[in-house]
Amino acid sequence: MKVATFTTANGFRQWGVIDDETQTILGAADLEEAYFSFLPETLDELIREGDEGILQLASTLQKHRETPMAEPYRLSEVTLEAPLTMNKNVICVGKNYDEHIAEFDREKAAVPEHPIFFSKLPTSVIGPGKTIRLHEDTTSQVDYEGELAIIIGKRASHIPADEVYDHIFGYTIVNDVTARDLQKRHSQWLLGKSLDTFCPMGPAILIGDKQPKTFEIHTYVNDELRQAGSTADLIFDIPTLVSTLSRSITLEPGDVVATGTPAGVGMGFTPPRFLADDDKVSITISDIGTLENPVGR
Amino acid sequence: MKVATFTTANGFRQWGVIDDETQTILGAADLEEAYFSFLPETLDELIREGDEGILQLASTLQKHRETPMAEPYRLSEVTLEAPLTMNKNVICVGKNYDEHIAEFDREKAAVPEHPIFFSKLPTSVIGPGKTIRLHEDTTSQVDYEGELAIIIGKRASHIPADEVYDHIFGYTIVNDVTARDLQKRHSQWLLGKSLDTFCPMGPAILIGDKQPKTFEIHTYVNDELRQAGSTADLIFDIPTLVSTLSRSITLEPGDVVATGTPAGVGMGFTPPRFLADDDKVSITISDIGTLENPVGR
Repeated sequence: MKVATFTTANGFRQWGVIDDETQTILGAADLEEAYFSFLPETLDELIREGDEGILQLASTLQKHRETPMAEPYRLSEVTLEAPLTMNKNVICVGKNYDEHIAEFDREKAAVPEHPIFFSKLPTSVIGPGKTIRLHEDTTSQVDYEGELAIIIGKRASHIPADEVYDHIFGYTIVNDVTARDLQKRHSQWLLGKSLDTFCPMGPAILIGDKQPKTFEIHTYVNDELRQAGSTADLIFDIPTLVSTLSRSITLEPGDVVATGTPAGVGMGFTPPRFLADDDKVSITISDIGTLENPVGR
Repeated sequence: MKVATFTTANGFRQWGVIDDETQTILGAADLEEAYFSFLPETLDELIREGDEGILQLASTLQKHRETPMAEPYRLSEVTLEAPLTMNKNVICVGKNYDEHIAEFDREKAAVPEHPIFFSKLPTSVIGPGKTIRLHEDTTSQVDYEGELAIIIGKRASHIPADEVYDHIFGYTIVNDVTARDLQKRHSQWLLGKSLDTFCPMGPAILIGDKQPKTFEIHTYVNDELRQAGSTADLIFDIPTLVSTLSRSITLEPGDVVATGTPAGVGMGFTPPRFLADDDKVSITISDIGTLENPVGR
């Protein structure tokens, strides 16, 4: 099942369930009205409600299947937003694919012994379709990084690797946009990773599938395929990442952990191919969808 | 003027104005009731209200001086909390004092050409008096770093250095607690800086003085003076830090920027002197107060 946050033509924001086949989204607020169900107002709340929220959603959808009384919206007629309101932590992992490490630093491409965690400031999050700004007054090296991101569902502290999947709410896509010159100049990566608009997220959260599985990641710039990777090639897999983090940091429901990017970023080309005005970056991850953002000044 | 968030003996949380002379705090909720003023419910709201909130506070305090009708609490009878609810960004600066750089890395102690920004996760924030946990299962090198922190008052994007002070709400103290082994092992500093309880903050916010000024920082572990520094020795001063950040990142009201720590951290001693169970760290900054936290398992 895929859930997303969206705004309708009249400006009303709600969340809903996407039906890929009919290319529609069924709004939670509309479901609530039609079936007198109590559904949470936001995806953040749905996550906090845990299994109970999911069960309530499932039973409401069952009623809808039996007697359709709520009208879904066409996806083409709504605006999808970043799925979560970002008061949450956005934690990322650097150098988590062998081939990406090789392209990133040809001289001393060593596989890290421990995961490299850094963060993007929540203020950098934007939704699908919103413009990635080039910030030309401070950087001339804006690069894309398509990544699978997991969303924590249950508070996680000291979780062994084999219990990690019980604490995951779902999966979404993050573009870990990076100003390579600032990333290097300021030594720690925070600034180069956190410029306004540098964390496109969405378009939906894949939920209800808590089993370990493999995702395929394809990143296009305009119509050219740049990244084709699989989470099967992660150096530190999802259980290791979450388990390691949770030994030090209590992860809260709604926290986002982006898992690193495969090879094919702009900096890996000779000469490098950074993003330019009017480019379009789209990242497709199997079973989740496509996160597409234009690039502009 | 110093404002702080506190909880009274009956568990009611509010914010108030500290009177150092009488060692009391006058609650905003009590002021509101006594003088029929409208005051914001939290310090986060006060910050968002900008000058209007400060003016309203000042006029209410004036009424109180003329006809005292609200009863202040003794500071000894309330619990001070971290001043802000931490959905905010906590941005820190590394290696911002010459002598600290020398103690941190004797071999290649180069002064950075550009400020090194990193972040602490908001989940690591605790109030004064709360226990800094040693996390002995993941680190054996927990260190203290006493720092002046500024709190953004007005949204700041592309602010020139000479206008920075107009965007500052006030000043508080942060203990940038750091697990040195994790800071090094994970390459980026986030994890070693963001363990649960690793960001003590408070006890109060000094406001109403927006002029550039110098603060003296003294950090004690138990009764031994470890750090004695002055913000006069900052390599990148407050206008430079905020101006540089604001070129890339829109700083929001309530965001916290910690300005770096002077020499005297535990790692700078030979052999290093890390924090141990039952230690007590207290950081005093002139005009602000003392942030004291016990250390425990």
